[in-house]
Amino acid sequence: MSKSLLNHINYPVDLRKLSNDDLPKLAQELRQSIIDIVAVKEGHLGASLGVVELTIALHYVYNTPEDLLIWDVGHQAYGHKLLTGRKADFHTNRQLNGISGFPKRKESVFDAFGVGHSSTSISAALGMAIASKLKGDTQKHHIAVIGDASIASGMAFEGLNHAGVTDANLLVILNDNAIGIDPSVGALKQYLTNVKKGTQKQDNIFEALNFDYSGPIDGHDLPKLISELQRLKTVKGPKFLHVITTKGKGLKLAEDNQVKYHAPGKFNASTGELLAKSNSIEPPKYQDVFGETIVELAKKNKAIIGITPAMPTGSSLKYMMEEIPDRAFDVGIAEQHAVTLAAGMATQGLIPFCNIYSTFLQRAYDQVIHDVALQNLPVIFCLDRAGLVGEDGATHHGVFDFGYLRCIPNLIIFSPRNAIELRNIMYTAQLGLNQPIAIRYPRGRGHLLDWKISFKSIEIGKNLCLKKGNSLAILTTGTIAHSVTSIIEKSDVYKDVGHYDIRFIKPLDTDLLHNIFKQYSSILTIEDGVIIGGMGSAIIEFANTHHYNIPIRTLGVPDQFIEHGKVNELQNLIGIDTEALIKEINQLIFEL
Amino acid sequence: MSKSLLNHINYPVDLRKLSNDDLPKLAQELRQSIIDIVAVKEGHLGASLGVVELTIALHYVYNTPEDLLIWDVGHQAYGHKLLTGRKADFHTNRQLNGISGFPKRKESVFDAFGVGHSSTSISAALGMAIASKLKGDTQKHHIAVIGDASIASGMAFEGLNHAGVTDANLLVILNDNAIGIDPSVGALKQYLTNVKKGTQKQDNIFEALNFDYSGPIDGHDLPKLISELQRLKTVKGPKFLHVITTKGKGLKLAEDNQVKYHAPGKFNASTGELLAKSNSIEPPKYQDVFGETIVELAKKNKAIIGITPAMPTGSSLKYMMEEIPDRAFDVGIAEQHAVTLAAGMATQGLIPFCNIYSTFLQRAYDQVIHDVALQNLPVIFCLDRAGLVGEDGATHHGVFDFGYLRCIPNLIIFSPRNAIELRNIMYTAQLGLNQPIAIRYPRGRGHLLDWKISFKSIEIGKNLCLKKGNSLAILTTGTIAHSVTSIIEKSDVYKDVGHYDIRFIKPLDTDLLHNIFKQYSSILTIEDGVIIGGMGSAIIEFANTHHYNIPIRTLGVPDQFIEHGKVNELQNLIGIDTEALIKEINQLIFEL
Repeated sequence: MSKSLLNHINYPVDLRKLSNDDLPKLAQELRQSIIDIVAVKEGHLGASLGVVELTIALHYVYNTPEDLLIWDVGHQAYGHKLLTGRKADFHTNRQLNGISGFPKRKESVFDAFGVGHSSTSISAALGMAIASKLKGDTQKHHIAVIGDASIASGMAFEGLNHAGVTDANLLVILNDNAIGIDPSVGALKQYLTNVKKGTQKQDNIFEALNFDYSGPIDGHDLPKLISELQRLKTVKGPKFLHVITTKGKGLKLAEDNQVKYHAPGKFNASTGELLAKSNSIEPPKYQDVFGETIVELAKKNKAIIGITPAMPTGSSLKYMMEEIPDRAFDVGIAEQHAVTLAAGMATQGLIPFCNIYSTFLQRAYDQVIHDVALQNLPVIFCLDRAGLVGEDGATHHGVFDFGYLRCIPNLIIFSPRNAIELRNIMYTAQLGLNQPIAIRYPRGRGHLLDWKISFKSIEIGKNLCLKKGNSLAILTTGTIAHSVTSIIEKSDVYKDVGHYDIRFIKPLDTDLLHNIFKQYSSILTIEDGVIIGGMGSAIIEFANTHHYNIPIRTLGVPDQFIEHGKVNELQNLIGIDTEALIKEINQLIFEL
Repeated sequence: MSKSLLNHINYPVDLRKLSNDDLPKLAQELRQSIIDIVAVKEGHLGASLGVVELTIALHYVYNTPEDLLIWDVGHQAYGHKLLTGRKADFHTNRQLNGISGFPKRKESVFDAFGVGHSSTSISAALGMAIASKLKGDTQKHHIAVIGDASIASGMAFEGLNHAGVTDANLLVILNDNAIGIDPSVGALKQYLTNVKKGTQKQDNIFEALNFDYSGPIDGHDLPKLISELQRLKTVKGPKFLHVITTKGKGLKLAEDNQVKYHAPGKFNASTGELLAKSNSIEPPKYQDVFGETIVELAKKNKAIIGITPAMPTGSSLKYMMEEIPDRAFDVGIAEQHAVTLAAGMATQGLIPFCNIYSTFLQRAYDQVIHDVALQNLPVIFCLDRAGLVGEDGATHHGVFDFGYLRCIPNLIIFSPRNAIELRNIMYTAQLGLNQPIAIRYPRGRGHLLDWKISFKSIEIGKNLCLKKGNSLAILTTGTIAHSVTSIIEKSDVYKDVGHYDIRFIKPLDTDLLHNIFKQYSSILTIEDGVIIGGMGSAIIEFANTHHYNIPIRTLGVPDQFIEHGKVNELQNLIGIDTEALIKEINQLIFEL
């Protein structure tokens, strides 16, 4: 094999010394480099493979980091990171104290804007472009690269709609691969397909919004990309380049199985074959408990509807989409719409399960308040990926939900401690509540193998005593109960320690709380969400209202953004891993 | 004058007995009725006048309430209310225990969906249409009437994008009057103007999104409206009708001054002339303190930017838009974009003041967390209409902000107790913070006449003692301080009562709090926001952390949605009006 080009490129300035003819070879090396690293270290694969040529072309043509480049969502930016000073650190991708899986301003001046959630790039780039104009800098370019799934989100439309009436030096590049994490949906997607096929006139939506439209062009054709970008550098005002790419490009299996290879885990770098997982039987992922349970319930209850904003695979709603397609909806990256659609359905007597990752429900906060809770409509929110999510890091942790949901009237908030509880609360909710409910559960697997047992309904507002005691009462919510159980059932030291499951954060089980406060001399609350305004805060509010004066210690996510790393590493950082909990509990017992 | 038609119409079923020829006369009567009532009782005028003919045509052609009709935003629904059983109660519009100024499900079966915030109608109607289809009801029609300002919001696009790939029996009617509360903005607005002028091809954006498009037609031409709606009843799938109307139609002054006559206050019903306000000099509205101060500051500090999502008049950013147009932006009903645009600008060293009503910031909650706070960008949020807003009611109260903002790391939260404090915190913020800040202030006027005094910077995190004491400490945040001051400074009974301004909800002034807790034997917190997770909750959390055991009584908005009425009536309802505060304070003193 000939001499490596990539070895000599640390920054785009090195890249720009290459001749045009060298670039296809560099693309090959960059692609292989991504494959080699992700095969071993895991991470997002398909998206970055799809934009290898575009990444090279952008840094070749534009004067980054002076010119400002924003990768929407950001999981396609691995090539960008490798070309912008992070080659040596790339093996630490998504690890604790390693580099982030997403562009991040603190990490590099080449990361013009931190991303993670979708569809922010146009607004951010426009803000930068207006800033440049005001500062009299007419040379600076501002580029947002956005996928076809992300551009269909309302926020992207808002950005386009504003940009179109400015003379900002803004280039929006549509990276059209017809897929987000799952295949793209919606009328805009159909429209883009027609544009590609040539069955749609050139006078298109983006031109209607005042953008100078060009394309579609082949996003794997480096010479064409480069010449088109060079041309666009000379065009004034808002510009739109439609680029067609293939997600997973260059790794056959990844091209053929785009959903699976979005973030495939470890695989064979040469063949692409996924490494066989161990054959031991594991407890199910919570998402699958949701996915299988909704199918089971929906087969019996014809009013049940499933809704996901662009996460059929991640939420496992795909099972229902396969089995009962007319009642399961992927609405695209459109959380706001998903919630109000569910509200509309609920007015007509349907029972919508609206499954949204906790972090993404932030996108539909107003709709939860204004369209669902205010009208007291019995929408069932299933908030997946609640709590610390691990390697995706600060942009994705679902740690604010108790804080932002607890202040909403009419809303029930439930946090199951295991798969059976999740299953039973779903069963209970579809029996017919007269109000909305938010059920929040974490990423990953639980601890129960034998979870698919007969449904049992749960009394609304009834919390549980998991272990009796009379000195220290530990109050947990959600799956962290398991850590506590595993600690306090191991030793006689903890025989007087009680343990309670605050599965209903709202309404609180006040009878139980009165008993606890009367019986115990100290309380410890533990949750995997923000301490400010969270479950522990609810307990403190209760104690204050009723003039209980025993000490309450609250553990959870402190008032700071938590970075990426393994979940247990992050739990360790904030003092809620098993080791820290043992220390804390022992200390509190000692103080009694 | 000939016999009244309106007198004999209580419900649409009565309307449908009229002949086509009677309808223009009915329109005249309905229009006059709206004018007569709003002239005396106040409320939203222009929007309802603009859709008089459309309202009649819809209820004439469609079989409401079986067919489901949703008025986006809802302030144009006065005609709808008058024709659907609320004629006799309409004089109670927007009053405590009277009918709501917006459609509301509890009020009437004709109000298919509660509205208030914009751009929800398409999603809700689509949800209903899908429900009908699943229930096998192919006869039911589902109609969303949405204005051109509201359809440019991202949420509406999300609804259209989904609807376009369904076969839902959905009619979206674009009520295009080129204005929201202020004139519409954005590329879509320009596009619609071109469609109207005939300079845009018929193959348009809405057709690209798979809607069967018709129009534009004259929205004041009853025969045309009726025949077109009758035709559309027979068209399957998603349909889009573009209707051109004039806001304020039928009242010359309202047509000519559409912004002023959006909600004009009392006026002469015959001439339209606004009733002269009293000539007494009043303290300024908080919005004007913002509006005038930002101009003053921006003239000196060239980095200052003003951003409003569609509220230049309501926020008073219009002053800056007039004086410094290149640095003041109305981005349309696009709160998400507004926040991330500000974040983008902040990365480039600009100092964006992003002015959003508290209730509407709920629309951009994720952007505040993910784009601003996580990156610790010094965006200055000015949250107008915080607390109880009065007659607009449950959809518009800005009472959740402390609850949802307090859990966000990096964010400073400040609540000025008067105009000078608002002015000074704006001054302080633009001097350069290294983090974002949210400044929240209420609708309406303060109490200070002499407010435009020299700027003085405020020490971040420093709260204030307003009155010393040693028995009961009253902690207020925001303008409710004034009520407390007016009570405790009147009588010697309160000589030992202390009063503190918790202007910084975050960071808390812990030094001051330690002093308070050491010095006093009882604490009362008062705020005009939710008790759960609010300022009082912060004080309780502090007390718990530091093991202070004195009683803390928290007053504020209880855990329920608060309806419409005058602000002092609503304060009375929840026990924070002056009378209730006196009782509360006296009781607490008595208990000491």
